[in-house]
Amino acid sequence: MTATARTGVLAGPAAPTDSASVRLRPVPPGDARITGGLWHQRAEANRGASIPSGLTHLRAAGNVRNLEIAAGTAAGEPEGPVFADSDVHKWLEAAAWEYGRSGEAELLTSQLELTELLARAQAEDGYLNSVVPHREGQRYRDLPWSHEHYCAGHLIQAAVAQARATGRRELLDVAIKVADHLVATFGPGRAEDVDGHPVIEMALVELYRETGTDAYLELARWFVDARGRGIIAGHGHAPTYFSDRVPVRDATTVEGHAVRAVYLAAGATDVAVETGDRELLAALEHQYDAMERAKQYLTGGLGARWEGESFGDPFELPTDRAYAETCAAIGGVQWAWRMLLATGEARYADQIERMLYNGFLAGVSLSGTEYFYVNPLQLRSDAHPEGDRSPAHGRRGWFDCACCPPNIMRTLSSLSGYVATTGTDSSPDGASSVQLHQYVPGTVAAGGLELDVATNYPWQGRIEVTVRRAPDTPVALSLRVPAWAEGATLDGETVRPGYATLTRTWQAGETMRLDLPMRPRLTTADHRVDAVRGCVAIERGPLVYAFEGADQPDGVVVDDMLLDVTGEITEEHRPDLLGGVTVLRARGYRGTPPPQAATPYAEAGTRPSGHGEPVALTAVPYHVWANRGPNPMRVWVPAVGD
Amino acid sequence: MTATARTGVLAGPAAPTDSASVRLRPVPPGDARITGGLWHQRAEANRGASIPSGLTHLRAAGNVRNLEIAAGTAAGEPEGPVFADSDVHKWLEAAAWEYGRSGEAELLTSQLELTELLARAQAEDGYLNSVVPHREGQRYRDLPWSHEHYCAGHLIQAAVAQARATGRRELLDVAIKVADHLVATFGPGRAEDVDGHPVIEMALVELYRETGTDAYLELARWFVDARGRGIIAGHGHAPTYFSDRVPVRDATTVEGHAVRAVYLAAGATDVAVETGDRELLAALEHQYDAMERAKQYLTGGLGARWEGESFGDPFELPTDRAYAETCAAIGGVQWAWRMLLATGEARYADQIERMLYNGFLAGVSLSGTEYFYVNPLQLRSDAHPEGDRSPAHGRRGWFDCACCPPNIMRTLSSLSGYVATTGTDSSPDGASSVQLHQYVPGTVAAGGLELDVATNYPWQGRIEVTVRRAPDTPVALSLRVPAWAEGATLDGETVRPGYATLTRTWQAGETMRLDLPMRPRLTTADHRVDAVRGCVAIERGPLVYAFEGADQPDGVVVDDMLLDVTGEITEEHRPDLLGGVTVLRARGYRGTPPPQAATPYAEAGTRPSGHGEPVALTAVPYHVWANRGPNPMRVWVPAVGD
Repeated sequence: MTATARTGVLAGPAAPTDSASVRLRPVPPGDARITGGLWHQRAEANRGASIPSGLTHLRAAGNVRNLEIAAGTAAGEPEGPVFADSDVHKWLEAAAWEYGRSGEAELLTSQLELTELLARAQAEDGYLNSVVPHREGQRYRDLPWSHEHYCAGHLIQAAVAQARATGRRELLDVAIKVADHLVATFGPGRAEDVDGHPVIEMALVELYRETGTDAYLELARWFVDARGRGIIAGHGHAPTYFSDRVPVRDATTVEGHAVRAVYLAAGATDVAVETGDRELLAALEHQYDAMERAKQYLTGGLGARWEGESFGDPFELPTDRAYAETCAAIGGVQWAWRMLLATGEARYADQIERMLYNGFLAGVSLSGTEYFYVNPLQLRSDAHPEGDRSPAHGRRGWFDCACCPPNIMRTLSSLSGYVATTGTDSSPDGASSVQLHQYVPGTVAAGGLELDVATNYPWQGRIEVTVRRAPDTPVALSLRVPAWAEGATLDGETVRPGYATLTRTWQAGETMRLDLPMRPRLTTADHRVDAVRGCVAIERGPLVYAFEGADQPDGVVVDDMLLDVTGEITEEHRPDLLGGVTVLRARGYRGTPPPQAATPYAEAGTRPSGHGEPVALTAVPYHVWANRGPNPMRVWVPAVGD
Repeated sequence: MTATARTGVLAGPAAPTDSASVRLRPVPPGDARITGGLWHQRAEANRGASIPSGLTHLRAAGNVRNLEIAAGTAAGEPEGPVFADSDVHKWLEAAAWEYGRSGEAELLTSQLELTELLARAQAEDGYLNSVVPHREGQRYRDLPWSHEHYCAGHLIQAAVAQARATGRRELLDVAIKVADHLVATFGPGRAEDVDGHPVIEMALVELYRETGTDAYLELARWFVDARGRGIIAGHGHAPTYFSDRVPVRDATTVEGHAVRAVYLAAGATDVAVETGDRELLAALEHQYDAMERAKQYLTGGLGARWEGESFGDPFELPTDRAYAETCAAIGGVQWAWRMLLATGEARYADQIERMLYNGFLAGVSLSGTEYFYVNPLQLRSDAHPEGDRSPAHGRRGWFDCACCPPNIMRTLSSLSGYVATTGTDSSPDGASSVQLHQYVPGTVAAGGLELDVATNYPWQGRIEVTVRRAPDTPVALSLRVPAWAEGATLDGETVRPGYATLTRTWQAGETMRLDLPMRPRLTTADHRVDAVRGCVAIERGPLVYAFEGADQPDGVVVDDMLLDVTGEITEEHRPDLLGGVTVLRARGYRGTPPPQAATPYAEAGTRPSGHGEPVALTAVPYHVWANRGPNPMRVWVPAVGD
């Protein structure tokens, strides 16, 4: 395919080429719009607060100045971490998608200013990095740690976003020079080296999709295949941390640094579908299974360990020390999205929903100005804050390592890209197909259909899809029924989890009504998850709930309380609370007052027992916790009455 | 007091001066001897295997060569971590105590050779470090991280040990030059800087005790008081990690890096007793209480987090990711010992016993040649080893950061120092007093008494103390009754936990018989300890037990099994097994086979339930686990039948 073929095409989170081995194809985000509800509210905070304040932070922290130094328009030494450029690039990507979403003129102006700066900072041969050559004395001296390809990858992603969302090619020109430089420098027979932090793989494939230049795809494939062959470990680095212990296609699970692992897997999925590599895709499916089976939090959060920001062993999922980095949830969504396109399986759309509504969304305050880097499922009463990533002091305005905030921004500004797809299978009768994966109030134009979606999801389970325009030919319209939605009905008929599909020649004005049962669900965990053995969590629809100290009756200590699983759970929508949330109330007990013992250990039977006074406990969606200052919180509560 | 007053006095783990505010005073280890049993067996492995192979490792890893470079007798760059010297110093301390214990000539020869090397490596002004000046370009550039005082501290401790155990003063001369250099360089009005890793505080106080030079005590006091005042944080380091967030006397708990924290607390206790600082001692008692109440594992292990090798929040005590560094248990023993001397309270001797028999002793293999750096209370079936500290691959012969092995060596060689004390209170009738804290087969000469102790402790609970010689005056002889030993009897009379004291004018040939009930005990934990909620552990006497995969019936998976708390626990002494251990057998269940589910989460009531087939489970002492290769292990098992 030629570059021209895709110029100006809006497509958010990964857009496979026509020749890719995928079952589903994205709907360009201009054609899927979110016009109200929870995500619109968050996207507006992103536009109005996060993105503008993000640029202020990037200026204050020196990231922009670093580029000015590289461009020769400022003097001094670069500041911040070695990957400081990538935060600017992610911000640029956010600004691009957000300009495409809201058309806010200032977002184009800022983008073009920064783009010009990047062009000036770029070396003649295409190399572009404002920190590493200053600090290391030369390029690519310690690629496993220098993040040079990582920065290049985020630049490329920003450039593709700018081209697709604004139609401007200035940043794409910079990115193509970067990519050509990489192609000329790395690969078999050239420098056989890989970056310790993946993202370049996804980026190069997307640039291939944008430009049609095969060399980008080939280099991405080489980077994927180069891992696990001792290149990184050869630099004296720990192979597991860098997803470098075994080759990607031999790996049976995810391990090491969680963001690195899922970015790599997402990029490998891109490579697999563009090269038709079924063996690689099968390996990635197996790895995804292993992650979901034993290494993912109920919130969708990924990464059990602070040590190395990494995945733990299977079922090692502590709640208090869950790392669950916001960026890992974002990478998880990116990987799941690619698996969804590749396989067409609803489980990946379920996963996207779980990660977006919980593990991801908790990463930003309702105001859009404060962020969590780390997203535990429990905050103890006596938790002591350590460093700027600690959840114990609540969200923070920025971080020394500021990867998460601009990553949140680019995700919130491109969310409409995850709403719908069209199918690539041509059915015998030639019907096109459209899939709705995520339910948001808005519009979708796909497969010849124009649809209005009306819903109060995730607060209510009714989704009304009205056909505004339809072609003369049949269209198979599939609505995702989440795995948790046993008892769902479509136009009154019971439908099973997966996709409920109606194939017909649609008429304008026709309406379908999907009803998802939103009853609160009590969830338990595998007995191997130590931290929550004997506990329950409450979910409702796609939302995981949390008990925050702020909502409990006087004197109830979150660390001590118990939940009565035989009690009814009642719900109340509170438009006034936390931006409007449905609150749940459950029967519980205060718990035994903690013994004032000299040690936590006592002979069985000698400890005071009993459940303490009955109390009404209140839960709010996990994603809004810590919007009233830091206070004790837990998702999982010891169960009684079972 | 004068230097002469203490020359040649053998005293192992801290010997307060006569003017110190202590309730108890150590018995010089030459006067308390361990002649058989578990600790003798381990001390012999230490002498025969650990100490000689330790020197081989130190030579192979470059630690000795670093000193040769500093001495000008070898060329090249120093290798290993910045604190490499300290491992040599700890080995020297071990060799000194071990020479005192066993009299093995080779240990004196090696000591004197290394001592000569250290003397040659020492600068004219007393500074002695083989790594830092090479690497940093100059001294004391980054004291919070450079470990220069830390290395000096271990050198001083080795020198005091050499003087006390061998009577040789060569290393003491080197150490005095080091200490005089520190006194000339640091303190108020001089360089106001502190080392990030405590130990110099303990060391300087002990050198003051050895030499009578007040300036050493004054500098130690200054180092203790300098913490928490922004000196370390001022270098850009995280204050909590370095025990530098608040002044020692204002701290209400232990936090940050566990070894740093307990070494500092031990040194501060030394300062408190030597300066009569009751306020400081009270603060330390409060901190010890807080540690024992909520930050210590059942094994006595200290440090819940891999991240920063640090204490966690209260009750944050995961079993799989327990860090419980071997060195932290050693530091815990050192602190508890000083608290015991200061207060005379049996609880600290109980603590020493718990830490020595469990959290400490698990750090070395029965062979004495392999070590654990990290001592978790659970190893999962699918645990993946990462780096040389990972318990998943079993103990290791040495470590890149080799602090633990020589720390184990110096502890095993000086253990007799913890056995007994004499009291400092003169009773109205002028009776002297002797306390037996730890029960080992051996001899004790103290307070004019000469005692033989015969026991098979910790396998059997009978301890027979026979008087061999006695003065004509009354002696109050106290035997510790551990807190777990409810129902203990002394000569047939029930005695309460604490110290059981008999005061009389003793006759040679008299025998006392203490019987400690060794029935297996089921232990539960505070409900706030997530990882073990609903679980029980088994203890017997001072030993914590563990279930290792190797001992369970075919097909029983340690991760899945359950323990029936209504069943009888039977015991069998197995002289053939693991150096001779008492094995426990408990009734249990295989557990529900783990569901092959897509996720660890399921709606309550939908998961397969039941306990599975009844099985007999076998537990061995925690300290001998992983002597048959790494295999799944857990101390805490989910309880049923309660």
